Amino acid sequence: MDIAELRSAHPDHWKKATAIRTLTLDAVAAANSGHSGMPMGMADVATVLFEKHLKFDPKAPHWPDRDRFILSAGHGSMLLYALMYLTGYEDMPLSEIKDFRQWGAKTAGHPEFGHARGIETTTGPLGQGIANSVGFAIAEEIQRARWGKKIIDHHTYVMAGDGCLMEGVSQEAIGLAGMQKLGHLIVFWDNNNITIDGTVDMADITNQPMRFDASGWHVQEIDGHDPEAIDAAIELAKNDPRPSMIACKTHIALGHAAQDTSKGHGALTDPTQLQAAKEAYGAPMGDFEVAADVKAAWEAMGARGAATHQDWQTRFDALSASKQAEFNRQYAGEAPKKLSATIRALKKQISEGAPKVATRKSSEMTLEVINPICPETIGGSADLTGSNNTLTADMGTFNPDNRQGRYIYYGVREHGMAAAMNGMALHGGARPYGGTFMCFTDYARGAMRLSALMGVPATYVMTHDSIGLGEDGPTHQPVEHLAMLRATPNMHVFRPADTVETAEAWELALTSQKTPSVLALTRQGLPTVRTEHKTKNLTAQGAYVLADAEGKRQAILMATGSEVSIALAARDLLQAEGIGTRVVSMPCWELFAAQDEAYRKRVLPAGPVRVAVEAGVRFGWDQWLFGERGKRDKGDFVGMPGFGASAPADRLYKEFGITAEDTAAKVKALLG
Amino acid sequence: MDIAELRSAHPDHWKKATAIRTLTLDAVAAANSGHSGMPMGMADVATVLFEKHLKFDPKAPHWPDRDRFILSAGHGSMLLYALMYLTGYEDMPLSEIKDFRQWGAKTAGHPEFGHARGIETTTGPLGQGIANSVGFAIAEEIQRARWGKKIIDHHTYVMAGDGCLMEGVSQEAIGLAGMQKLGHLIVFWDNNNITIDGTVDMADITNQPMRFDASGWHVQEIDGHDPEAIDAAIELAKNDPRPSMIACKTHIALGHAAQDTSKGHGALTDPTQLQAAKEAYGAPMGDFEVAADVKAAWEAMGARGAATHQDWQTRFDALSASKQAEFNRQYAGEAPKKLSATIRALKKQISEGAPKVATRKSSEMTLEVINPICPETIGGSADLTGSNNTLTADMGTFNPDNRQGRYIYYGVREHGMAAAMNGMALHGGARPYGGTFMCFTDYARGAMRLSALMGVPATYVMTHDSIGLGEDGPTHQPVEHLAMLRATPNMHVFRPADTVETAEAWELALTSQKTPSVLALTRQGLPTVRTEHKTKNLTAQGAYVLADAEGKRQAILMATGSEVSIALAARDLLQAEGIGTRVVSMPCWELFAAQDEAYRKRVLPAGPVRVAVEAGVRFGWDQWLFGERGKRDKGDFVGMPGFGASAPADRLYKEFGITAEDTAAKVKALLG
Repeated sequence: MDIAELRSAHPDHWKKATAIRTLTLDAVAAANSGHSGMPMGMADVATVLFEKHLKFDPKAPHWPDRDRFILSAGHGSMLLYALMYLTGYEDMPLSEIKDFRQWGAKTAGHPEFGHARGIETTTGPLGQGIANSVGFAIAEEIQRARWGKKIIDHHTYVMAGDGCLMEGVSQEAIGLAGMQKLGHLIVFWDNNNITIDGTVDMADITNQPMRFDASGWHVQEIDGHDPEAIDAAIELAKNDPRPSMIACKTHIALGHAAQDTSKGHGALTDPTQLQAAKEAYGAPMGDFEVAADVKAAWEAMGARGAATHQDWQTRFDALSASKQAEFNRQYAGEAPKKLSATIRALKKQISEGAPKVATRKSSEMTLEVINPICPETIGGSADLTGSNNTLTADMGTFNPDNRQGRYIYYGVREHGMAAAMNGMALHGGARPYGGTFMCFTDYARGAMRLSALMGVPATYVMTHDSIGLGEDGPTHQPVEHLAMLRATPNMHVFRPADTVETAEAWELALTSQKTPSVLALTRQGLPTVRTEHKTKNLTAQGAYVLADAEGKRQAILMATGSEVSIALAARDLLQAEGIGTRVVSMPCWELFAAQDEAYRKRVLPAGPVRVAVEAGVRFGWDQWLFGERGKRDKGDFVGMPGFGASAPADRLYKEFGITAEDTAAKVKALLG
Repeated sequence: MDIAELRSAHPDHWKKATAIRTLTLDAVAAANSGHSGMPMGMADVATVLFEKHLKFDPKAPHWPDRDRFILSAGHGSMLLYALMYLTGYEDMPLSEIKDFRQWGAKTAGHPEFGHARGIETTTGPLGQGIANSVGFAIAEEIQRARWGKKIIDHHTYVMAGDGCLMEGVSQEAIGLAGMQKLGHLIVFWDNNNITIDGTVDMADITNQPMRFDASGWHVQEIDGHDPEAIDAAIELAKNDPRPSMIACKTHIALGHAAQDTSKGHGALTDPTQLQAAKEAYGAPMGDFEVAADVKAAWEAMGARGAATHQDWQTRFDALSASKQAEFNRQYAGEAPKKLSATIRALKKQISEGAPKVATRKSSEMTLEVINPICPETIGGSADLTGSNNTLTADMGTFNPDNRQGRYIYYGVREHGMAAAMNGMALHGGARPYGGTFMCFTDYARGAMRLSALMGVPATYVMTHDSIGLGEDGPTHQPVEHLAMLRATPNMHVFRPADTVETAEAWELALTSQKTPSVLALTRQGLPTVRTEHKTKNLTAQGAYVLADAEGKRQAILMATGSEVSIALAARDLLQAEGIGTRVVSMPCWELFAAQDEAYRKRVLPAGPVRVAVEAGVRFGWDQWLFGERGKRDKGDFVGMPGFGASAPADRLYKEFGITAEDTAAKVKALLG
């Protein structure tokens, strides 16, 4: 690449783009760690996007109608940080750039949502950003239909690298976006032909434009260092009704000795090479130095956005007070006022009627009363709508012909669904939930972990939560998944025992601000165990005494979900023999652990033997069997020794010894 | 679809294909559960494949040079079971078909590897089969190059549905297979335009042939009910040097009232409709009835294979005795005799030299001595070769120009890599290992669980196993992953403390027959803690006393991996204050749990306080802190409270309180 030619062809543009490159080089050198090549390669695209197209206001980073800029290739975080610093985001002063990758800095190795206002999503695990962006774009479509173009009408721009496109989740995103004709989604592919291991063709020969085209995208191929070509391509992309992919041919680490090599992907810290690159750029030579006129030009881009924002504010202020309040409620992620009373009414009705239903059906019953009062919910399933019971009568299908619809047929795309849910929640004004079989959390883990890490209150409706699903067999029967999810920080794992607990779990999920929720629900019918109506949400305490011992308390049975009724039956057997037995329902360990010690000790006092019952592996249960007591007690576990099997559910429960009789026998063995 | 026309056009073919359809209908009806539509739609393709092309011998299901038949759309398991019964596999008598989906039957809801010889892999979780098949085909290529075409020269045939192709892992498989030009891989796409939620276009409009074409595949589109077209397409596919995709336009549940509907995907059990379908087919009307001449025709296909097998056996017997022995050793999955001595020599050298190295480097040092004596290893990385340290000098790169190479650049495809590794191991004659960052087990979980469920001894080289990776931050720092993996049944999770334990872990991984292994390895340098050479593999016991208390034993420190040296330093602090402290290294919980109780109690006797040290979440540790003791003792944990952060590693260890000082302080607090 002839740097001199690039400099002279578009000198003003060049200086602006160069500021990104030199800040990147300096920050990575100071940290002695990071990824220099991507920001240096994509600086031209970013500069044109921010200067000519992106709708953003650095003084109001959360303005709802801003365009979203998603750096899917998150290792190139310095691109984002440099853009934020240059355009004047308050959270991104130069001191943060100088502190790149250091303890307490907002400039983490990869962009972390929540560290600085202006970081739209956490990226780094490849493919997540492009998959999030589908959710951002869906939320925008729905809200544009709901509030009108004067209030919501913006684009989602994504920068994705070769790695993002090799990850399978990208295909799920591309397929979903293409079918949904998400015309406001524009993806720049950083086509530099380099990955960590070498040139891309060592691992992939995919014709990416053809691949996107095959899924219904608008595709362009340009020189990613030509500002006029970039501008023209963005203009065309904005005017096409399909999602757009712009393949930008770029040089990784442009102008550096490591240009076009896999070395250029990583940390370029050699001081001589760094200075040589700056010299070739014609850039200021000082560390972190940006010429005043260049900084001013960048800040002017931000100022342009402030004017656009003000125009929007005027339009927004013209809305009725009630519309404004409703808009603000949805964007604040606050549950509607009616929610609590609605849940209470359902609980009362259920406690009185005491139906026997599967908790997946309980969830549907709850959604049937929730969705009409929560217009911000966006539901869906990864091709298991009838099994996950995620669709309610009022929702309507979201598709290119119906942007008011709130139900999404995600296709067989668990990972893409979870990542899109993250994007919707991050967009604001949306509260996504989505379903699949619980076993296939395995497929969605990459995005579910990011829900937890980012503090995104998405709700995962995971049905068929144990061997209770029966004949489909061990590939479909989760046994370790409750443990996996419970081990994940900042995740509420609910396993409700009946419809009442399911409704309570939904209430907690919908009022959560910073924690995703997983609802583990049964395929098989369960009796109502909460037959006495309580207005209080008992699930909020995580665990509670469902049935206390009669007579001397000799045993405590702890159980979740479908095994709570087994524990109650075991209690009957034990009480019949005069063994006083308490049953504790534990629908959410995380919430129980968050209660004060006094409450926990009231629920699980020292003394009695303890037996836990859950149709999963024991892993993690020792915390409650032994972990927190004043004196040594005996404990045991009734559950799965390993993987399940294919057979009718009742037979499986018997064969694996998860029955009232087995539970009672273990209690008696402990009591000697 | 005009059934009468199909019947009359190819009457002999029709009868054979019909047998698959009626067995499916009867088995699903008897089980009142299952998936009828796919076997009914793909019966014609299967019949032509088995009759005209597939190289198989029902009397020798494990014959190494057989073609592999992979039912990626595993819910259509009755297709496979019917084929096996009809052609005469010993493990698949009619009684098994009649027992479909029942306790103890070989005919599980989805095909389970190990249930019956002839089931090549476990499928059901969509996309796994097609991704496995890439591994099958790679193993075949390598072995064809190694042993010559007379010994290894077969095809891998796959049946994949719309769901398989929507799953992201399919793109990883398609991309990898296309780049690798796996000409012996032939995928039939069951193009029936139906998924569970409805027609495919509700979720996807992807032009699949174009998508495969974009990744370098040979593509054909045919009528999947026309036996001549099927035959011709397979012939062309076999003769093309690229992997082939044959798009077969089919009718789901052909000839049944539910044909071409999403209802047809599931269990078709209505007796009247069932009888009507049989009548339209002109099939025998009895339950599970197959006309004798039709059964004989199917068995003749199997007999044809027996002759081909015999020819192969003659060629194999002509090999030298040593070649035969080596071939058989590799197919039996037995480690080479030299392995043990080689590992011992490395251990001795390390214990004497006591180098400070990262365990990812320790793993490379081990592989450098292992790979030259284990020609069956196939290594690789998901685009992190230099970081995972998975490549050794002798391996050579596997690519279209070098089929002798044993190292695979998988690209940024963790899930595809893991699924391909399963395929290689299942093919036989190969022992795969592959690397990525440990955090990205999240992406590979779908396939890793199947390694465990199938009992496939693949080895996962998971480096950068904690906050010790430093600046890349929380997206790249596993904290819950050790717990997730340990919670998974039949998985050995090794977290070695130094090079000696790493070498021991590799020895165990390479001698494992039925259990996959995960090696959790550090980015950061670690001191050698095993400075006294022991010939015995101490890691095989899972946990052992690394340093015992001097004086009265008041405390036990348990640690794994990088925290073992922290525990040793804490012991020094405590012993200096006269507190007798034992340090137990616990590189593999699963193996420790498998020791007899006497050994476990010797290592972890009752009495002393216990503190566990691990740079991950506490989840699961209570098992060892409290779970198995004769009297109540106190315990505590030094580790991560939640997600990590971006900063240099040393700073993170200090900030999160994972130091010798913190550990010693917790011990003293417990001792009061």
